[in-house]
Amino acid sequence: MSEIKTKVLKICEDVKKASAELANLESTTKDQILLEVVKLLKKHTPKIIKANQKDLKIAKEHRLDIARIDRLTLDEKRIANIINAVKDVIKLKDPVGKILYDITRENGLRIRRISTPLGVLLAIYESRPNVTSDIAALSLKSGNAVILRCGSDCVHSSKIIADVFREALERFNVDKNSVILVANIEREYVLELLKMENHIDIVIPRGGKSLIKAVMENTKIPVFRHLDGNCHTYIHEKADFNKARKILLNAKMRRVGICGATESLLIDKKIAKKILPLIADDLSEVKCEMRGCAESAAIDQLIRPAEEKDFYTEYLDKIISIKLVRDIDEAIKHIAIYGSSHTESIITEDKSAAEKFLKKVNSAIVMHNASTQFADGGEFGLGAEVGIATGKLHARGPVGLEQLTIYKYIVEANCGLR
Amino acid sequence: MSEIKTKVLKICEDVKKASAELANLESTTKDQILLEVVKLLKKHTPKIIKANQKDLKIAKEHRLDIARIDRLTLDEKRIANIINAVKDVIKLKDPVGKILYDITRENGLRIRRISTPLGVLLAIYESRPNVTSDIAALSLKSGNAVILRCGSDCVHSSKIIADVFREALERFNVDKNSVILVANIEREYVLELLKMENHIDIVIPRGGKSLIKAVMENTKIPVFRHLDGNCHTYIHEKADFNKARKILLNAKMRRVGICGATESLLIDKKIAKKILPLIADDLSEVKCEMRGCAESAAIDQLIRPAEEKDFYTEYLDKIISIKLVRDIDEAIKHIAIYGSSHTESIITEDKSAAEKFLKKVNSAIVMHNASTQFADGGEFGLGAEVGIATGKLHARGPVGLEQLTIYKYIVEANCGLR
Repeated sequence: MSEIKTKVLKICEDVKKASAELANLESTTKDQILLEVVKLLKKHTPKIIKANQKDLKIAKEHRLDIARIDRLTLDEKRIANIINAVKDVIKLKDPVGKILYDITRENGLRIRRISTPLGVLLAIYESRPNVTSDIAALSLKSGNAVILRCGSDCVHSSKIIADVFREALERFNVDKNSVILVANIEREYVLELLKMENHIDIVIPRGGKSLIKAVMENTKIPVFRHLDGNCHTYIHEKADFNKARKILLNAKMRRVGICGATESLLIDKKIAKKILPLIADDLSEVKCEMRGCAESAAIDQLIRPAEEKDFYTEYLDKIISIKLVRDIDEAIKHIAIYGSSHTESIITEDKSAAEKFLKKVNSAIVMHNASTQFADGGEFGLGAEVGIATGKLHARGPVGLEQLTIYKYIVEANCGLR
Repeated sequence: MSEIKTKVLKICEDVKKASAELANLESTTKDQILLEVVKLLKKHTPKIIKANQKDLKIAKEHRLDIARIDRLTLDEKRIANIINAVKDVIKLKDPVGKILYDITRENGLRIRRISTPLGVLLAIYESRPNVTSDIAALSLKSGNAVILRCGSDCVHSSKIIADVFREALERFNVDKNSVILVANIEREYVLELLKMENHIDIVIPRGGKSLIKAVMENTKIPVFRHLDGNCHTYIHEKADFNKARKILLNAKMRRVGICGATESLLIDKKIAKKILPLIADDLSEVKCEMRGCAESAAIDQLIRPAEEKDFYTEYLDKIISIKLVRDIDEAIKHIAIYGSSHTESIITEDKSAAEKFLKKVNSAIVMHNASTQFADGGEFGLGAEVGIATGKLHARGPVGLEQLTIYKYIVEANCGLR
């Protein structure tokens, strides 16, 4: 066995052992530990900032781009935000131990289905050190042990933050290996971790498409992922133009870099000549580039011709693709072909059209007269999330505390003979 | 593209197309189709028996063993059972369209989580032709399209049964490709099907361990599976001896070939000298072979020494492994190491011991004073099942209608701007 393999196996065994204890921790204990985390994060703020400066120094030496350096940077305000996020998690209800089914059969058997933690999570993420705290807090609250594999950029800051969690766990005599940060930056470490399907129950990649793709290609462990958030806003012929303009502008431009941002606009041909010039003006005013099908480009010269691949693209930028459709059926079909099953919205005043769209579009989130930017666990009243899932199993949409649990059956009898 | 690849792709495209329509079918329509299936199965009983005789002739030519030929055989009575199983599915509640979460936020956004079908199922099974009908009925009721890949032994009978479903679908103008049987027996067909992760949402293997293992090794599609049902009955020192003897005998011997049968017996050392000879007599009377640890073999000469591998083995036969344990902690630890996370039962009158066991044993099903043979969706009041899952994601324990669904979020607003 290679040295790395041996080390990874040891980490996995340690965290799996810790997970058995963590799974049965009382809610109050979990919350006390998280309160301790809050205290320690406050106390160690200068230490975290110092470690972060080490990360920043290396990042600058490696000439990382400004956006990445910004994501990496921690100051007192950002650490206060991290602390507030932990406080928010404390306020959430414990998702473990919920009775999901309770029946007593005629033969006297009582059968209950009770929510339990998944077990061991592996989070793989890039340069945001706050993810270390966010995911560790959600894992702890949901009774899951977690292996954190941060990006090489934020190793120093993440290490201090993870150590805060371990210190808090220890103060309550809970196995500190419930939170383990893998600070080794070699790629082989990740590859070995991804092979540990007997120890790790779910992988949560947080980052760009290439990271998520690489994870999926190298593991048999289930992955909570969305490769793309190629979200659509569809303006139906019966749309209220004012609403449509406001919603589209919000859906595309509120924040262009989030997965719920609209990347593609569909408009019914019947109304395109009227509404498209208005929308083109709205978007051009905020410097959003428009790439449209031939018919849309013919309507307004602000729209440049799109290529086929544009309709598959998640820009995460001030760019939008535009396609005119014959009717709602073509819109639904277009989304099925080009979409990524994330979030799609119809803008219409026609109730039956809305109903059809909400029924037939099979994405994790479907909307009527709302901005796709609402695709967010917090906005849904579900609390913090580790991400949005676009798969078909276990979790779809926001992956929050509840989605980090599964269940087991408890069967009780006096002398149950079948 | 090879000829087989082309054919498999065509099948997958057809079934995926059908699944979109099936997902939105009204409950009443689904039930009417299933009622039509009942009628047609009755009408075509002679045809099914005739086709089955073809299968039996080939099976005998291939000198299949008696057990397999028995599983393969259909007569009027067995077809009546198949029909009754379809009737039972009709009686179950539609799992699709259930509102699982419904909240209206302060900003006016209404957010609902609604159950939806998984999409496309792939069932791979061996020589029981009744599985064709069971799985097709559960798929249809849950709004899932299904590709049925039966064993080569039962191709002729399965074909007629699948055609009954297709005929019933057609009578209600529903795409008959909602149910497709792949009657080609080449192994390459299965391997190609297992690569269709863009078309198939879940694989359900029904059969022996080697089948399930082969499926898992050759696919990236999620699998509902249990490799082993290495179930334990643990007799705690505070057990009522009479109950313990009755429950163990039922757990081991009621039917030895089902996955919920107890394969391994754990007994607290403190009571072993008293209870083990009684149990050994009970088991020896019904010709159950006992393979025990050294200490247990020393107590009763009916017990032969076990090898280490016995404790990992699912016998599915009149054989049981026996291990004496120091206390409940050692029992829990033994199950964690040797068990298969299926079903385990503690026999005790001590409430706190029972509680500890139910909490700390992390199997899909944990029991107190009950026979492990109860591990069954029907017994749990959940209706028919496609199997028992021992994974950690989406479904654990019986996989019934509910487990064949997932959900999507529907968000409605008047003019929802974030």
